[in-house]
Amino acid sequence: MSNKRVLTGITTTGTPHLGNYVGAIRPAIAASQDDNVESYLFLANLHALIKCSDPAQIHQSTKEIAATWLACGLDTSKTVFYRQSDVPEISELCWILNCMTAKGLMNRAHAYKAAVDKNLEDGEDPDFAVTMGLYSYPVLMAADILMFNATHVPVGQDQIQHIEMARDIAGRFNHHFGQLFTQPEAVVESHVKVLSGLDGRKMSKSYNNTIPLFSTEKQLKKAINKIKTNLLEPGEPKDPDDSTVFQIWQAFASAEQTAEMRQAFADGIAWGEAKKQLFELINTEIAPARERYNALMEDSAQVEAVLQEGAKKAREYSADLLAKVRKAIGIYAL
Amino acid sequence: MSNKRVLTGITTTGTPHLGNYVGAIRPAIAASQDDNVESYLFLANLHALIKCSDPAQIHQSTKEIAATWLACGLDTSKTVFYRQSDVPEISELCWILNCMTAKGLMNRAHAYKAAVDKNLEDGEDPDFAVTMGLYSYPVLMAADILMFNATHVPVGQDQIQHIEMARDIAGRFNHHFGQLFTQPEAVVESHVKVLSGLDGRKMSKSYNNTIPLFSTEKQLKKAINKIKTNLLEPGEPKDPDDSTVFQIWQAFASAEQTAEMRQAFADGIAWGEAKKQLFELINTEIAPARERYNALMEDSAQVEAVLQEGAKKAREYSADLLAKVRKAIGIYAL
Repeated sequence: MSNKRVLTGITTTGTPHLGNYVGAIRPAIAASQDDNVESYLFLANLHALIKCSDPAQIHQSTKEIAATWLACGLDTSKTVFYRQSDVPEISELCWILNCMTAKGLMNRAHAYKAAVDKNLEDGEDPDFAVTMGLYSYPVLMAADILMFNATHVPVGQDQIQHIEMARDIAGRFNHHFGQLFTQPEAVVESHVKVLSGLDGRKMSKSYNNTIPLFSTEKQLKKAINKIKTNLLEPGEPKDPDDSTVFQIWQAFASAEQTAEMRQAFADGIAWGEAKKQLFELINTEIAPARERYNALMEDSAQVEAVLQEGAKKAREYSADLLAKVRKAIGIYAL
Repeated sequence: MSNKRVLTGITTTGTPHLGNYVGAIRPAIAASQDDNVESYLFLANLHALIKCSDPAQIHQSTKEIAATWLACGLDTSKTVFYRQSDVPEISELCWILNCMTAKGLMNRAHAYKAAVDKNLEDGEDPDFAVTMGLYSYPVLMAADILMFNATHVPVGQDQIQHIEMARDIAGRFNHHFGQLFTQPEAVVESHVKVLSGLDGRKMSKSYNNTIPLFSTEKQLKKAINKIKTNLLEPGEPKDPDDSTVFQIWQAFASAEQTAEMRQAFADGIAWGEAKKQLFELINTEIAPARERYNALMEDSAQVEAVLQEGAKKAREYSADLLAKVRKAIGIYAL
């Protein structure tokens, strides 16, 4: 058995874009090839409920994200790939962990504190528009992680605190009821590529500056043409290090291609031409996956079957661990 | 179909005592005979975790409470009788309702506010020793109730607020996602008999003044002999309305027997004699149930089978309703 179990959740509220592909999907799929690592990857639809009350959007996003990962080559014989709500043990564990979690711990969560600060600034009640879902989501996240005894959880800087909370909750449970949970480590990938969006800021749904991963070729071309550039004419030398076009180029190009484009910028390549080449580069990489994606989106029964298979594998683990947890806390057959 | 569905939960942390019998078990079993009422009765072991971290106690209490209700004549062909943790839909609904519950609502819960007040008095942090389980238990209670579309929930005065919260949460859900939940009504039974304990205060586990319902005859006699009385001698007239012995007598006696004992008090019955008669009266009523109780405690497999049967019935309803809830919020097959 491998000694490293990596767990990643993806909240099902949006449509995958190029930034997700470069920053998360491509590296995670590459990492999951490592035979010394067990990978758990799940569609976090119970988390999605916290910020999204549009059922159609949650459903569509679940489908798009699942189809995207499969189209990009996720090997589900190596990775346990499941939808959170298909593993009911997680919700039950979430309640059990509630009873082991100090409320004070949640008071210190950054996301909650930020909401309170903003409310106070606006002269509102501190808890204005804060739901119990938002407030207690670190407990659900702890349940996601502890349910599979994950050892490593790749996170952004802003999520380190939640892993510490999961460690804290696990420690408290283990102290009272015996060593059932692994205390996970946060893995902050400092070398993760953050892709720039159309306006030069980090590509993010919240900035509305994304390039969808799997639109049509025509839409992809159109989106790339919208990338903000400066007014330098063809023939005028351009600074690659101040260019979103070049930044995105780097994320898809080989070292050689990157050097060539750097030279082309120095030589005054026209923005239109640079964007045309960028489109070709991206399109060449993603076209085969796009075809698979479109086929999967047409055949959602197949995607559903893959998720069901994943849930079955996940539950082999979670049902067994939950049985041990129940036994430890006094919930078992008479 | 009947239009009244009554739901009651019993927290599995203690051993049933005479006060439970008179105030809850006997009337609930009588009420469940009504063919116009559907009864749901459950062992709230997920709630028990909030206040009890002793697994043996939770397990033992679950067994004792289940055996007690069955021994006292609960008709499980009329009442859906189940253990909360056997219905995983409840835990999942609890999380879903979290996402529909304003945190401000929980801030106003009496039990939480009392804990905060006490902490402030003691110069502690307001949330000292408050767990997320304690804080969010009104959400779990709402899930318990809404999961079965209960129309009526018998509660004590101190629990009315929780029913109002369940109504509030149901209303908010229905408003966003369609009419799936019934808004329950609190039924405050003002005529419920509150039994006095050994020291004359309300009989309650927290006062440590209880008389166990199903101890041995000898232990029952011994407990009754401990009931606090005054120093009046045999022959001296005694005030029945100031006597715990008489108060408990009333809870078990017919109108005629009550009148006779009132006369006996006026005539100066000795405390020893009054207690002897009280023992006989109680013992006559509960002896057949005690025998059944002891048999059930020896045969926990039978009790377990009854609970499994109840969970099956409960889940026929809860699985169907949860499927509708999931569909409404965007969690369903692709």
